[in-house]
Amino acid sequence: MGQKLRVAVLGATGYSGLELTRILLRHPRVERPALLRRPNTASAADSEKSDSNLADIFPALYGNGGYPMEPFSWTSLKHNGVDLLFLATPHEVSRELVPQAAAQGMRVIDLSGAWRLKQAKHRTIYNFPDDESVTAAEVTEKAVYGLPELNADKLAGASVVANPGCYATTIILALAPIVRAQLANLDKGIVADAKSGVSGAGKKPTSRTHFVSVADNLSAYSVFAHRHLGEIAEQLQIDADDITFTPHLLPIPRGILSTIYVQFNRPMQAAEVQDCYQSFYRSKPFVRVFSSPRLPEIQFSLNTNYCDLGFCLAPDGRRLVIVSCEDNLIKGAAGQAVQNMNVMHGWQEEEGLL
Amino acid sequence: MGQKLRVAVLGATGYSGLELTRILLRHPRVERPALLRRPNTASAADSEKSDSNLADIFPALYGNGGYPMEPFSWTSLKHNGVDLLFLATPHEVSRELVPQAAAQGMRVIDLSGAWRLKQAKHRTIYNFPDDESVTAAEVTEKAVYGLPELNADKLAGASVVANPGCYATTIILALAPIVRAQLANLDKGIVADAKSGVSGAGKKPTSRTHFVSVADNLSAYSVFAHRHLGEIAEQLQIDADDITFTPHLLPIPRGILSTIYVQFNRPMQAAEVQDCYQSFYRSKPFVRVFSSPRLPEIQFSLNTNYCDLGFCLAPDGRRLVIVSCEDNLIKGAAGQAVQNMNVMHGWQEEEGLL
Amino acid sequence: MGQKLRVAVLGATGYSGLELTRILLRHPRVERPALLRRPNTASAADSEKSDSNLADIFPALYGNGGYPMEPFSWTSLKHNGVDLLFLATPHEVSRELVPQAAAQGMRVIDLSGAWRLKQAKHRTIYNFPDDESVTAAEVTEKAVYGLPELNADKLAGASVVANPGCYATTIILALAPIVRAQLANLDKGIVADAKSGVSGAGKKPTSRTHFVSVADNLSAYSVFAHRHLGEIAEQLQIDADDITFTPHLLPIPRGILSTIYVQFNRPMQAAEVQDCYQSFYRSKPFVRVFSSPRLPEIQFSLNTNYCDLGFCLAPDGRRLVIVSCEDNLIKGAAGQAVQNMNVMHGWQEEEGLL
Amino acid sequence: MGQKLRVAVLGATGYSGLELTRILLRHPRVERPALLRRPNTASAADSEKSDSNLADIFPALYGNGGYPMEPFSWTSLKHNGVDLLFLATPHEVSRELVPQAAAQGMRVIDLSGAWRLKQAKHRTIYNFPDDESVTAAEVTEKAVYGLPELNADKLAGASVVANPGCYATTIILALAPIVRAQLANLDKGIVADAKSGVSGAGKKPTSRTHFVSVADNLSAYSVFAHRHLGEIAEQLQIDADDITFTPHLLPIPRGILSTIYVQFNRPMQAAEVQDCYQSFYRSKPFVRVFSSPRLPEIQFSLNTNYCDLGFCLAPDGRRLVIVSCEDNLIKGAAGQAVQNMNVMHGWQEEEGLL
Repeated sequence: MGQKLRVAVLGATGYSGLELTRILLRHPRVERPALLRRPNTASAADSEKSDSNLADIFPALYGNGGYPMEPFSWTSLKHNGVDLLFLATPHEVSRELVPQAAAQGMRVIDLSGAWRLKQAKHRTIYNFPDDESVTAAEVTEKAVYGLPELNADKLAGASVVANPGCYATTIILALAPIVRAQLANLDKGIVADAKSGVSGAGKKPTSRTHFVSVADNLSAYSVFAHRHLGEIAEQLQIDADDITFTPHLLPIPRGILSTIYVQFNRPMQAAEVQDCYQSFYRSKPFVRVFSSPRLPEIQFSLNTNYCDLGFCLAPDGRRLVIVSCEDNLIKGAAGQAVQNMNVMHGWQEEEGLL
Repeated sequence: MGQKLRVAVLGATGYSGLELTRILLRHPRVERPALLRRPNTASAADSEKSDSNLADIFPALYGNGGYPMEPFSWTSLKHNGVDLLFLATPHEVSRELVPQAAAQGMRVIDLSGAWRLKQAKHRTIYNFPDDESVTAAEVTEKAVYGLPELNADKLAGASVVANPGCYATTIILALAPIVRAQLANLDKGIVADAKSGVSGAGKKPTSRTHFVSVADNLSAYSVFAHRHLGEIAEQLQIDADDITFTPHLLPIPRGILSTIYVQFNRPMQAAEVQDCYQSFYRSKPFVRVFSSPRLPEIQFSLNTNYCDLGFCLAPDGRRLVIVSCEDNLIKGAAGQAVQNMNVMHGWQEEEGLL
Repeated sequence: MGQKLRVAVLGATGYSGLELTRILLRHPRVERPALLRRPNTASAADSEKSDSNLADIFPALYGNGGYPMEPFSWTSLKHNGVDLLFLATPHEVSRELVPQAAAQGMRVIDLSGAWRLKQAKHRTIYNFPDDESVTAAEVTEKAVYGLPELNADKLAGASVVANPGCYATTIILALAPIVRAQLANLDKGIVADAKSGVSGAGKKPTSRTHFVSVADNLSAYSVFAHRHLGEIAEQLQIDADDITFTPHLLPIPRGILSTIYVQFNRPMQAAEVQDCYQSFYRSKPFVRVFSSPRLPEIQFSLNTNYCDLGFCLAPDGRRLVIVSCEDNLIKGAAGQAVQNMNVMHGWQEEEGLL
Repeated sequence: MGQKLRVAVLGATGYSGLELTRILLRHPRVERPALLRRPNTASAADSEKSDSNLADIFPALYGNGGYPMEPFSWTSLKHNGVDLLFLATPHEVSRELVPQAAAQGMRVIDLSGAWRLKQAKHRTIYNFPDDESVTAAEVTEKAVYGLPELNADKLAGASVVANPGCYATTIILALAPIVRAQLANLDKGIVADAKSGVSGAGKKPTSRTHFVSVADNLSAYSVFAHRHLGEIAEQLQIDADDITFTPHLLPIPRGILSTIYVQFNRPMQAAEVQDCYQSFYRSKPFVRVFSSPRLPEIQFSLNTNYCDLGFCLAPDGRRLVIVSCEDNLIKGAAGQAVQNMNVMHGWQEEEGLL
């Protein structure tokens, strides 16, 4: 198997970072990852200095000597021969660190939304203070949107990988076969009604993530104003107004189910649609296409890197309902990041992910 | 206040029947309701003979001498001077009993789907064996769809009230102001993505209602094939193909949130939409219209008879997302039945419901 | 019915305060309560100044013109003829305000732990800075522990009522009949294993109340160190070391179930035990004694002011397991406060609580 | 690594059987397990004939060609060279099949309670119709109680392994260090207050496992009458009356937390107790002893084979509260079965379990 890859994780104390660490610890091709404490960046002064061991934050990791965390510095990363840096950090932090990584010649997989968007109009929602800078333009150009099912060819040589958003993954994978085959009647509009578990809202305690606010409840939020809309439109090469995307907060810890409504240009047969999906994802190990009218549920893909797709066609042959499920922390974040690493290095796409 | 109304409940052992009993027990205008054991009808031989007291089934009712159940018979109902019969029974049972009630001259409010549909094409999904009979045609004609916000005038003299479906209530109330004002572009299609708590699936234990199947999960079901679609189309006077309705099973005991997507014929202002809703529901005590962009959540209407409505308008002014919430056992069933009773008798609509 | 009582609530923005407000709004003997914004006390500078309407904090209260909040001042309370003040405030705040109320001659029901303990050794866990003061001694002496089932006679003339802790209520009510009849072998030790829903931990968002921390979990906390231990011991007149009390955090919004283990001095018959409980609580409307071996569950008492008791006796006749349930926000807080108000004023104990 | 072991699983369609199948599929020392359909035994005529593929029952297994199930027969098991049979079957079925396996010379690990108890008085609760038979006596004698932390030496040569009950595992492991060191004052009585997720109640839908019955609830059951009491007493070599064991049903899918109360013969120091636990479990990879007063929670051991132990000592040094957690389907069932297999074959105890 040769030399193992040396990797480091910044942000292991968040939900995605923890999952990422767990997957990397089991991955046969990488060394035990270095876990880094967040630096004092301009945008994020609330460093994690006091956390000396990941097991203190996540007692599920108790035992085995623990998981000591190290201070972050480019010098020590270089000194330790780290080949690949994972950023599981807020987008403000990633916005600062990715250009530094590029300048250091270090490959990076960024789980935040900092570098996913190519078009300036879609980035306005983030209000990046550096968006006009030359460096930002350079990094934006070289960053590859890390959805391996669509962009595997660009990932091989990538130095900056922008890992997709959790909602965006379920929606793009559900729509790509239909939209790329130009079967969708965009004039009628697409609806993506998405529901996510609470880990998607992050680990910070807020009144919104308080147990009493979430339990026995369901709520819609960020209607017409969610950050993932831009990446969905860009990857599907459609206008953002052609799709209405509504996220909801589910009373479960993890998992996403997106129900997607699209209309066809002409009446279709269920078998045609089935074929369209199955041929599109034939050699893609992490997309499971269910046989219509069987539909995936959130439980089926929990704790896996699968995105599960199923659909029902209306009797009129013109309206399609697609159900798309994933574990938001795995296929929607950490697992996909590792899948990207695998593709970048020419390894088997499933390595360390089954 | 005069003489109190004598009422009876058949089906108090189900979730809706229990809520109905609780509300009637507090209602200032009705006598303590007679609780009836289900008869041995042709369609439902699994009678509830063994249940002698409702508190044995629902220990939350423990104390106060209990709630004894009586055998069902038309003779004894007449003998006891019962004025109004509530049926919280499966639709097969209601299909048999409502014509009998009509023949006896007894007013009835039926919580099932047995008599909600006027158009034969919408009834095919129920496969009623008696659908061609003269009696069925007569009862169908006289039955009033018991959504008091739309049909208050017909309720006054009604002898048979078909209480609406839980999903249908949230969707019809959300769409009526827009559709009746002919603002909706039906050609673009309407989407109603609805999510319900498990009590909506009934009390019978099945693998689908097992805690382990529901918890930490979300699933879509009956896509393009749910029974409530017909009543939605009939009440909105639209074609059933103009609306795509997808129900989902939420990991919560009760409550419904429907997210509804409609496109306008012309660009609208948020204030126009707000005004459309507020004027439509001005004198309707059980519809709360939220000020956009504030949206209702399931928790807000739990244990109340409210249907809560809120909306967001797209920046393009053409796409509207409406969020509609209710407690499926109250406004979606038992509370609405009592509201119908109030309107039928000319009492205050809120009587016993606040 | 005569003149209605004028009451005010300080702390309506907390979970207990909200429940209290809801109950008082329905209470036939009190005026619509004044809702007060918390003052800038020395100990609690995070006043609720910005909250002008309770419906903004709890949108479930939407409609009906809202629930405006007023600034707190003794002058305006007096001016408005307020007869009784409810404090649903942190114990530090109550520690400051109750002596002021006493000085003003205003009766007060305090839901916090500030004035529940008579014995100095039990109060050390609170670290009250004023515990040695003359005023504190005076208020401590006059404060009545507001468990109406045990202390109804003292409540009639009380000017300061210390409303019991939620856990303490379930445990004291479960043990009082046995302990007062001197049936318990205290030398063997009593165990109270208690489990509470998350609302008991308060509304403040913390990592402990984050949905992802609580869901799919159970945890014990404050073992041998919970504040309610002292009031349990005092009310049962036993040594605190005679009882081991362990609270747990349940993944539910509300409700407490305490499982209590006690050994008898001599072998008993189940019928004797049943009789002991039933005669003790014969005229107590809010304690429901289940017939052994039937046991209460948390659901049975939710949204009610009941404390439900059930028990199982070991075949050896010496070991008793008692199960005690309540809604922590009602019988464990707001409902009990109103029950205390009813008893203080010589009204029916159930007034406004059924 | 040599030849892999050939194993078969009967009962893969249950929750424990599914977990077992998943673990065996990943185990480096065993062939892909044969999945057997349940035979028509006298006691269990409801065979699983119709289930041809495990993925039809658990769609989470979708893909990878599925998991076909084979009819059960001793002939075909022998023919296929199966070395070890796992029974994840009801105890009635295991009671019939284990003697047959013994007669065939096939080693078996039985996950049911059929063969755990040595003493006739503890078996009466099961009402085994064959309990007086010679065969039953023989199998009982040779069956090893498969708790590897206590019985590793007997497992090596075992032909019949009775896998422990889920509750029993948490309680025995929590108490063994104290009881074996004769530190416990048994005269004062031990209390084990245990709480389990719903998967412990099995997959069969009942009114007790209905989502609406479990959610927002907690209930105690089988007080003084749970089947696991006998095995706890036997393994700890104490009298069953020395321990009071109360199970509760938690509103979570999986996981057990047992809170255990024991009194010491003499005052102890926390360090002594810590030392007692740590030395007892020093070389046991699947028991994690937390440093007092840190306590385990259910989440920490979910999806692992760990039993987590933590404790708090009373200030008086005489009362100990132990908290013991596990995943009931893993350390409480399937994982422990695989751990037993590992120990039986002299493999590393952790093989396939990390």
